[in-house]
Amino acid sequence: MSAVQSDIEIARAATKKPIIEIGAKLGIPAEELAPYGHDKAKVSADFIASLADRPNGKLILVTAISPTPAGEGKTTTTVGLGDGLNRIGKKAIVCVREPSLGPCFGVKGGAAGGGYAQVIPMEDINLHFTGDFHAITSAHNLLAAMIDNHIYWGNEQNIDTRRITWRRVMDMNDRALRQVVTSLGGPSNGFPRESGFDITVASEVMAILCLAEDLADLERRLGEIVIGYRVDRSPVFARDLKAHQAMTVLLKNAMQPNLVQTLENNPAFVHGGPFANIAHGCNSVIATKTALKLGDYVVTEAGFGADLGAEKFFDIKCRKAGLMPDAAVIVATVRALKMNGGIKKEDLSAENVQALVRGAANLGRHIANVRKFGVPVVVAINHFTSDTGAEIEALKDYAARHGADAIVCRHWADGSAGAAELAEKVVELAESGQAKFQPLYPDNLPLMDKIEIVASKIYHAAEVTADKGVRDQLKAWEEQGYGNLPVCMAKTQYSFSTDPNLRGAPEGHVVHVREVRLSAGAGFVVAITGEIMTMPGLPRSPSAERIRLNETGEVEGLF
Amino acid sequence: MSAVQSDIEIARAATKKPIIEIGAKLGIPAEELAPYGHDKAKVSADFIASLADRPNGKLILVTAISPTPAGEGKTTTTVGLGDGLNRIGKKAIVCVREPSLGPCFGVKGGAAGGGYAQVIPMEDINLHFTGDFHAITSAHNLLAAMIDNHIYWGNEQNIDTRRITWRRVMDMNDRALRQVVTSLGGPSNGFPRESGFDITVASEVMAILCLAEDLADLERRLGEIVIGYRVDRSPVFARDLKAHQAMTVLLKNAMQPNLVQTLENNPAFVHGGPFANIAHGCNSVIATKTALKLGDYVVTEAGFGADLGAEKFFDIKCRKAGLMPDAAVIVATVRALKMNGGIKKEDLSAENVQALVRGAANLGRHIANVRKFGVPVVVAINHFTSDTGAEIEALKDYAARHGADAIVCRHWADGSAGAAELAEKVVELAESGQAKFQPLYPDNLPLMDKIEIVASKIYHAAEVTADKGVRDQLKAWEEQGYGNLPVCMAKTQYSFSTDPNLRGAPEGHVVHVREVRLSAGAGFVVAITGEIMTMPGLPRSPSAERIRLNETGEVEGLF
Repeated sequence: MSAVQSDIEIARAATKKPIIEIGAKLGIPAEELAPYGHDKAKVSADFIASLADRPNGKLILVTAISPTPAGEGKTTTTVGLGDGLNRIGKKAIVCVREPSLGPCFGVKGGAAGGGYAQVIPMEDINLHFTGDFHAITSAHNLLAAMIDNHIYWGNEQNIDTRRITWRRVMDMNDRALRQVVTSLGGPSNGFPRESGFDITVASEVMAILCLAEDLADLERRLGEIVIGYRVDRSPVFARDLKAHQAMTVLLKNAMQPNLVQTLENNPAFVHGGPFANIAHGCNSVIATKTALKLGDYVVTEAGFGADLGAEKFFDIKCRKAGLMPDAAVIVATVRALKMNGGIKKEDLSAENVQALVRGAANLGRHIANVRKFGVPVVVAINHFTSDTGAEIEALKDYAARHGADAIVCRHWADGSAGAAELAEKVVELAESGQAKFQPLYPDNLPLMDKIEIVASKIYHAAEVTADKGVRDQLKAWEEQGYGNLPVCMAKTQYSFSTDPNLRGAPEGHVVHVREVRLSAGAGFVVAITGEIMTMPGLPRSPSAERIRLNETGEVEGLF
Repeated sequence: MSAVQSDIEIARAATKKPIIEIGAKLGIPAEELAPYGHDKAKVSADFIASLADRPNGKLILVTAISPTPAGEGKTTTTVGLGDGLNRIGKKAIVCVREPSLGPCFGVKGGAAGGGYAQVIPMEDINLHFTGDFHAITSAHNLLAAMIDNHIYWGNEQNIDTRRITWRRVMDMNDRALRQVVTSLGGPSNGFPRESGFDITVASEVMAILCLAEDLADLERRLGEIVIGYRVDRSPVFARDLKAHQAMTVLLKNAMQPNLVQTLENNPAFVHGGPFANIAHGCNSVIATKTALKLGDYVVTEAGFGADLGAEKFFDIKCRKAGLMPDAAVIVATVRALKMNGGIKKEDLSAENVQALVRGAANLGRHIANVRKFGVPVVVAINHFTSDTGAEIEALKDYAARHGADAIVCRHWADGSAGAAELAEKVVELAESGQAKFQPLYPDNLPLMDKIEIVASKIYHAAEVTADKGVRDQLKAWEEQGYGNLPVCMAKTQYSFSTDPNLRGAPEGHVVHVREVRLSAGAGFVVAITGEIMTMPGLPRSPSAERIRLNETGEVEGLF
């Protein structure tokens, strides 16, 4: 990469346009935009409702190979492709997730793209932004307070206090809150019980907001949340506690998509950010659908590698929202593939075609997997200066043999010019009519069958194991009417298997389902394989120690 | 009162002006306002800094008699007086506190004035507003996470985990969080310890934000926070954990005053809202000072009755910020004074001049107290339709005998027209040059002497008692250099005494100081007399059960 400026220096040097102008390019009247400062705005619900009869643009998913510490640049490629499409004359809109505040104070690194492919204002996007996550935190914790308050005042619903599944949330990396005992201190503080906090992005409210079609759907889904079980084991819903409507009031503004811009002044919606393990890891349906009404092309991304992110994007988000993706881009780097081929991080700069081809098996499997959903694929080679010509050629050859063109992209260094070729290829694919999207499995299979289909077809596992308790729980939910839900797999992102050290394209492994959780409001059943972290901790020397305002009032240390 | 519309109906029927126009009336250029929607904006730090050399307008405090369930209408009078001053040709700005989100879901009732004397948009102001309280919550909890993280990674500072005074906060009424045990679940979650949550408005970060002059002062004060003590009993500061700079980053926008408007399109700053018990209960210094540079008159209020609110406004806010108040308005109602005279709430509508005069002793004492600070006083009689002519006359006579004019106000029903006479009187007082403001006690007295002075001069107590532990703690803080701080009294607001049932003007009572707390960053020592609630609970049937969006997307049930 030729650029020598840091991401934040590039972002600060950008010429931002007033957000009203960005909205005007999309035909959004100024009065339908609620500004947050001069460079961020929310699109009104009324305006979104007025778009219903318009045709949809093309929907492009950006996904990636299995992640490695070498990095792939999925968000960067999403932004770069959006700018590239605009460069070649398409009205394209980028749709990405909002980053979580908490982790910004842990390990250095924001989440708004990089180099010359960023969404701005990056400091705001990485800090409070338009307050969406705070609203989600408030709505989630209001329900929690109402649960304990209900019990305090007599527990009319007969809630089994040992079987409350609704925890509290905070947008902070705080391991001390993972497991707590609450209501200590005597009768006036309630009945002591075990509970804990998750990070806000792991809240089911976040997943619900990201899957809801509008405020009415949001309210209905919030009412469907199962907060725990009665003494007779029947589920207790948020609506039983009359909490869902007040929660909706708290989420009224958070539900509206946030409009910002790329460094090249193209429109971007940054809205919603559910965890990609316990939830589906995609930006909001309402942002994606609004963008499809306003643009020729919508470029969006999904969390982790394609085995998790793309699968959930297709099987949860697209299935439930009725979205029809037209093409997928799988981001790969020569370095990450070499790492998948067994090379250590410190040796990645040396040419090694053999390791590259060995690691490319990971890419090959992701290509084949995405095609199983009926979606045509192009590979984006996110270029690093250490990549050699021989490596690039070998990678292109490999991809071609697996049915996908691979295009070298230099958007990090060159912005839209570096992604123009990829944009041309994406347009060619999307307009070819090749896409025949279908989810991996039908709604009406037993839940365990759905898990097995994902494990065999996507992960290439030989077997799925689960304890009787897990199987019984799935059956109980089927009897309660939840059998038609899709499954949301929680698995390590580093491998197709449940062993993070098994890189490349492992075969014949066993997937053990350790635990299952019901997200009745979001509309999926989470199948947990291996450890799942819903509240991160801070490292020994958190980046918070170095984050500060400089002499001119700019934020330092966040990136 | 003649109006029949509800507060929310009146607010919705108001003709709001774009906030840019409200700012323009004050000479704030549009680019120096960061809009939040079309009706709220933050004033930029650069613009505020540019005002330094301008002369100050007149500062008017609105305070009240001891509160009763009958209500006095302090915020309503503050807003009405602001509108009244504008009506008679003064450029007046209202400065009030931001309401807390949590309590909105408990007992019905927002906090943005009432009738034809409101600040708008009242739904937004009562919900997330511009996110200030969420930012304070994040900053507070980042420090908490960094404390436990520091201990987790080896406790280099040798913090005594039994002597950590920094708790966590949430903007929610949630009694279950008052007392908790954290870090349960094994080694990866840290070291279990007792802790708890306060409501966000009780956070020292809130008090700091409201007393800081600018971002540099904010950062310095955040660094001064004492989070607990080492094993050797020496204080551990937030700066020892390198947390204060990242906290400042989180508070960068929250520090800027929020501009909104009254129903009559006059400017109002709604900024900051510290608890009036554990903190000083006044809006932010930065908002008040900015308003003084931009207006001829600034009308502000302080929490609870004058024994608490006005005393802290004078002895903490004015003392530390160098503010010189020009006049004070004491709000009283015939009904509340009759209640102070021993009448039950259900009997308040019947004329009872005797009870009124008996209860007016409460008003008389507040008048005398405020005058001890060298500030001239006018009484505002907030008019109710049940008030009789005889009662009004008796009240005016009583006030006159105690050295203050009493003006009947009808701003609730009539807006500025109903407060014009009060406005004229306030101008007369403020421009008379009578004000010779001085705090009640000098900085250099021992802390216990300061408590005794407030108790004797303001509360008319005979004696202050305190255990040896409390006295030793005060001495220890004096030795550590905190002896020059003012004291922040935490006392029931319902009585001059510490017994909430002692209405009127009790004499010769004993004030027992149960506990003292150091707010080293905010710059005061809290003296707690009686119970103090820093995390409220929800009632049996919380208003959250009735808060909802109606068919047209408006919020119902919040007011």
